[in-house]
Amino acid sequence: MIQRFVIGKPFPTESVVLDLPAETGPVPYLTPDGDGWQYVMQEKDIVYGLGEMPRGLNKRGWHYETNNTDESEHGENRLSYYAAHNFLLISPADGSGCIGIFVDFPGKVSYDIGYTRHDTLRFATAEPNYALCLITAPAAAEVAKEFRQLIGPSYIPPKWAFGLAQSRFGYKTEADIREVAAQYKANGLPLDMICLDIDYMQSYADFTIDKARFPDLGKLAAGLKAEGIRLVPIIDAGIRCDDNDPVCREGLEKGYFCTKEDGTPFVAAVWPGKAYFTDFLRPDARAWFGRQYKVLTDLGIEGFWNDMNEPALFYSPERLKAFFEKAAALSRKDNLDQNDFFGLVRSVMGLMNAPEDYRSFYHDTAAGRVRHDRVHNLYGGCMTRAAGEAFQTLRPGQRTLLYCRSSSIGAHRWGGIWLGDNHSSWSQLLANIQMMPAVQMCGFLYSGADLCGFSEDTTPDLALRWLEFGLFTPLMRNHADAESREQEFYRFTDVLPAIRNMLDLRYALLPYLYSEFMKAALEDAPYFRPLAFDYPADPDAREVDDQLLLGEGLMVAPVHTQNAHGRTVYLPEGMKMLRLRSVSDYDEEVLPAGRHYLPCELGEVLLFIRPGHTVPVAQPAANTALLDDTALTFWRFAPDGRPAPYRMYADDGVTTDHNRPEHWRIVGQ
Amino acid sequence: MIQRFVIGKPFPTESVVLDLPAETGPVPYLTPDGDGWQYVMQEKDIVYGLGEMPRGLNKRGWHYETNNTDESEHGENRLSYYAAHNFLLISPADGSGCIGIFVDFPGKVSYDIGYTRHDTLRFATAEPNYALCLITAPAAAEVAKEFRQLIGPSYIPPKWAFGLAQSRFGYKTEADIREVAAQYKANGLPLDMICLDIDYMQSYADFTIDKARFPDLGKLAAGLKAEGIRLVPIIDAGIRCDDNDPVCREGLEKGYFCTKEDGTPFVAAVWPGKAYFTDFLRPDARAWFGRQYKVLTDLGIEGFWNDMNEPALFYSPERLKAFFEKAAALSRKDNLDQNDFFGLVRSVMGLMNAPEDYRSFYHDTAAGRVRHDRVHNLYGGCMTRAAGEAFQTLRPGQRTLLYCRSSSIGAHRWGGIWLGDNHSSWSQLLANIQMMPAVQMCGFLYSGADLCGFSEDTTPDLALRWLEFGLFTPLMRNHADAESREQEFYRFTDVLPAIRNMLDLRYALLPYLYSEFMKAALEDAPYFRPLAFDYPADPDAREVDDQLLLGEGLMVAPVHTQNAHGRTVYLPEGMKMLRLRSVSDYDEEVLPAGRHYLPCELGEVLLFIRPGHTVPVAQPAANTALLDDTALTFWRFAPDGRPAPYRMYADDGVTTDHNRPEHWRIVGQ
Repeated sequence: MIQRFVIGKPFPTESVVLDLPAETGPVPYLTPDGDGWQYVMQEKDIVYGLGEMPRGLNKRGWHYETNNTDESEHGENRLSYYAAHNFLLISPADGSGCIGIFVDFPGKVSYDIGYTRHDTLRFATAEPNYALCLITAPAAAEVAKEFRQLIGPSYIPPKWAFGLAQSRFGYKTEADIREVAAQYKANGLPLDMICLDIDYMQSYADFTIDKARFPDLGKLAAGLKAEGIRLVPIIDAGIRCDDNDPVCREGLEKGYFCTKEDGTPFVAAVWPGKAYFTDFLRPDARAWFGRQYKVLTDLGIEGFWNDMNEPALFYSPERLKAFFEKAAALSRKDNLDQNDFFGLVRSVMGLMNAPEDYRSFYHDTAAGRVRHDRVHNLYGGCMTRAAGEAFQTLRPGQRTLLYCRSSSIGAHRWGGIWLGDNHSSWSQLLANIQMMPAVQMCGFLYSGADLCGFSEDTTPDLALRWLEFGLFTPLMRNHADAESREQEFYRFTDVLPAIRNMLDLRYALLPYLYSEFMKAALEDAPYFRPLAFDYPADPDAREVDDQLLLGEGLMVAPVHTQNAHGRTVYLPEGMKMLRLRSVSDYDEEVLPAGRHYLPCELGEVLLFIRPGHTVPVAQPAANTALLDDTALTFWRFAPDGRPAPYRMYADDGVTTDHNRPEHWRIVGQ
Repeated sequence: MIQRFVIGKPFPTESVVLDLPAETGPVPYLTPDGDGWQYVMQEKDIVYGLGEMPRGLNKRGWHYETNNTDESEHGENRLSYYAAHNFLLISPADGSGCIGIFVDFPGKVSYDIGYTRHDTLRFATAEPNYALCLITAPAAAEVAKEFRQLIGPSYIPPKWAFGLAQSRFGYKTEADIREVAAQYKANGLPLDMICLDIDYMQSYADFTIDKARFPDLGKLAAGLKAEGIRLVPIIDAGIRCDDNDPVCREGLEKGYFCTKEDGTPFVAAVWPGKAYFTDFLRPDARAWFGRQYKVLTDLGIEGFWNDMNEPALFYSPERLKAFFEKAAALSRKDNLDQNDFFGLVRSVMGLMNAPEDYRSFYHDTAAGRVRHDRVHNLYGGCMTRAAGEAFQTLRPGQRTLLYCRSSSIGAHRWGGIWLGDNHSSWSQLLANIQMMPAVQMCGFLYSGADLCGFSEDTTPDLALRWLEFGLFTPLMRNHADAESREQEFYRFTDVLPAIRNMLDLRYALLPYLYSEFMKAALEDAPYFRPLAFDYPADPDAREVDDQLLLGEGLMVAPVHTQNAHGRTVYLPEGMKMLRLRSVSDYDEEVLPAGRHYLPCELGEVLLFIRPGHTVPVAQPAANTALLDDTALTFWRFAPDGRPAPYRMYADDGVTTDHNRPEHWRIVGQ
């Protein structure tokens, strides 16, 4: 059951698609508490949700603030990451009904989930104008499904977007790109995409191409595509201030940019230096921005990633000026004491993503002129929508790849996300595992973390262990920051055979992974989910924070600690374990329900088939186009001796007619 | 067997106490590799060591650099923390002999332990002048013991230093201190120490007292001592530049400070603004600095902590000036591009602990004038030595509490350490568990992390879980940064009964913990150690990275993940498990060898008694002075039915005559 309560006069976020009447009675389950709501938790109640946020599957024991932030220091103590996913799912330990809470509000929402008091959940919006949707059902899985119905169907990418993507902030020229493609091929590693970071642009200006570095991008794209590799360029939120740039000029002339209080365009510096920011909350500005992608789709580009769309701001000219004045004043002092000195440090760091800047510009929406900070969390998602809407016109009937950094619920209908700028660490591998079901619960099915880690330096074993989980995530991208260790998979020569086996395994599993993704997208089914969703009556299953169910028939239990040669796995029921060194080299064993310590060396992956399930397996291929999903073998666990068939989805992978019944076939009878 | 090899002309670090002849033959086990040494690891070989460093008990899979650094961003990807502990212990999986490696060098040493290549260990010193000590023995425990003999006996604090210490950067006045003491008492929580951070000083100048805030520190100390609470003030490495300060004036007049190339005193800013840095590598300067503690010992102070002794540097006047000039130049530009802007950010951050500054000053040692960076890692330890040597004169025959931030091996003979400026996070709780045996292996027996975490914000459950491990560490201090959440244990009213029970448990276990500490200190025995040290033939014991053996008879297995209600524990042999809610309320069960999932709720602690062992348990007390170690009960695991006696150490806890045989008694027959 979904109940919608309206408090004050909410801004129309368009996050939900169901048109629910506003309830008139009191809000059940929650207790009013000042400007927010309170819920007292029993010790073993679990609170799922919040999508892209730090900490475990169970969000208890921390406070959070949905406030889309360019937070490159991913870690357990951050309050906000790049996205605002205002969904909580309370699963009481006593078996009483589960409660879903969606706070439909475009500004900051703060959550205290056992941070101040261990037993108390509290949340509040920055303003008393919001809609509160309460979903109640006996089981968590039902609440999750009803929520997906409330927010509408998830974005579906082309099938080739389930191949491997290689990316790095630092590929500067056509030669760099060709080198990556050549090395993958030379090393016998599959590849479907190479991403272009901002260096392909002229002076980091959106919708331009640096002709010195990429003399013929269309030819490059076509040549790579012939080898099964798509080029996927980046688009940033800010439009470079440049009177000679036609896009900039048109945006200015037609008034599509966000404005300051005095009506002049808001300016802040990002990668290209000073930039304007399209008012994505306006349909006309969205349409205009979306049309600009044509310069790239005309070159044969079929996929994009949208970045910097929180929007991230390096500095505003006003605040930079104030900083320089402060520095000049301090420079006249003989001896900076600690207050002066750390004040100086804080001043510089505080130039970036300054709250004052977010309070200094405006959107002109159908609901009136509104200051940015009050609708901040909609910005990134509306940029996603700008692109998604445009692709329907630019590439009619065709799927276009799109995944974005910032998002709010609703944007999942237009694109996927990556999990933000993480870093190369074992704790971020665990965060990847724990974040996947949380973002997918919020509709962002096509998602994944930067494998091996974006910033800082990875290691051969971390790269391999991360791949051992990443091979199951819909978006499988290896992406790195400019100053971090080179981490294309072919760099790790000492563990290369194992890396090749794991990449091959991904491709071999695509008939299953793609089918399960399509079930999730078309039927509001789950892809990744906590064990307790399927085994709600099992108290031990509720304890598990680092294993996931994957589609109908599989469970994964990744090794996420360094130097481990195995791990403890909990089986809520008897399952068949596969310990895979490759798609053709594995141990198998039927294990009873319970906890098991299972050896799992570097280069091995543990996979569990649930009873009565069958998994179709293809032969590995160099890219998705070469994958033959008719020549299948089957991994099964049929404890009753009767092999179950598998309902598989197979289509051309590129057109938008997802719903034709002939895409479904029964295999493995 | 210990072999000492001399490469080049090493600086006399005085880290070791055994006078070993230099070997003349080739170095065994290691292969020369450019300017360093290489060792090829088999997949299951373990590399222990490196003391205060990130990552697990097994240091494989990362690179490190011993380069004492004020690294407040503790995390798995840092290369250096506050200490230089150049000891490695290789434990091959094939059962062949273990190898200890001590790199006796006062500058930077870099270690690549499977970072570049998964299977290769490599290390190198910054200069080709060092001693290399190789210790070989059949078992890791023997190597560890021989290493302790090589480096000499560990510092022993007074017994009251095993009580609870409460600290916070932010106690500004006598009233603040009295409030802490009163709240601990009012809430029925034991307490032995309150630490004074830099606010007790006048303008952050060492060896001064702010009389406005602390009108009569001696009276305060005496009053608190009457209640069983010692005041433990901080001393920083830098001496405030102040012509009116007699200590500063004398240091200048007698030339005790480090100098620049031109012979004038080196100046850099720390907490008091500009400061001088005593040349602790000189015996006369050490003696002079040590004498200054008298101003506080004369007030009845019996313990200190030395801080900022890497030395940390906020900025040098030269580099600050250069920064202001750079800022002024940038301020004249119309549009800072990303290189300009991030250059500005890096310039500010780079003012702190700048390598250029460490290369700009000198020490005048018996071995000649030497540039600081070449002996950098000795600085903190020599400050420890300055204090430790002075206390022998200032407080003859008495033990004085001393623990320090920066250290190198050798300093363990003069003081303990805390594990640096950590932060409030679950990953830092695990780091605490994993660092303890590593620093104790290097002689720093009296050690512990800042419980609840120093910077950032703790939570009620983290505070309690951390205490559940911290109650076993020799130094048990709750310490917090100025801007972090208040975290005195009495603040957590919602879990206060459990916190009280855990603190009581610490005091009740002191007869065991103090005895085991004294065995470790007097007999070069281990206190904390990895399971594999005692069960070298058990391959599963080698896998365990988050359980520790504690003294002769106990094993601990702390819960270190949030929202866990239990954990998997590996028992190398049958043990008696105690699940303690308090010293008098617990479950007990004899468990067979193997892996067990054991429930362990918040407020419970798992403790394991090894077969044939007995643990003496006292009644809880409000402080160590009130602890009655004659009224003991005993926890035992006597599978053969014959209770084993326990060899207990008991003395007055304050004098230095540790070695009298009458301090040992046999109890629990």
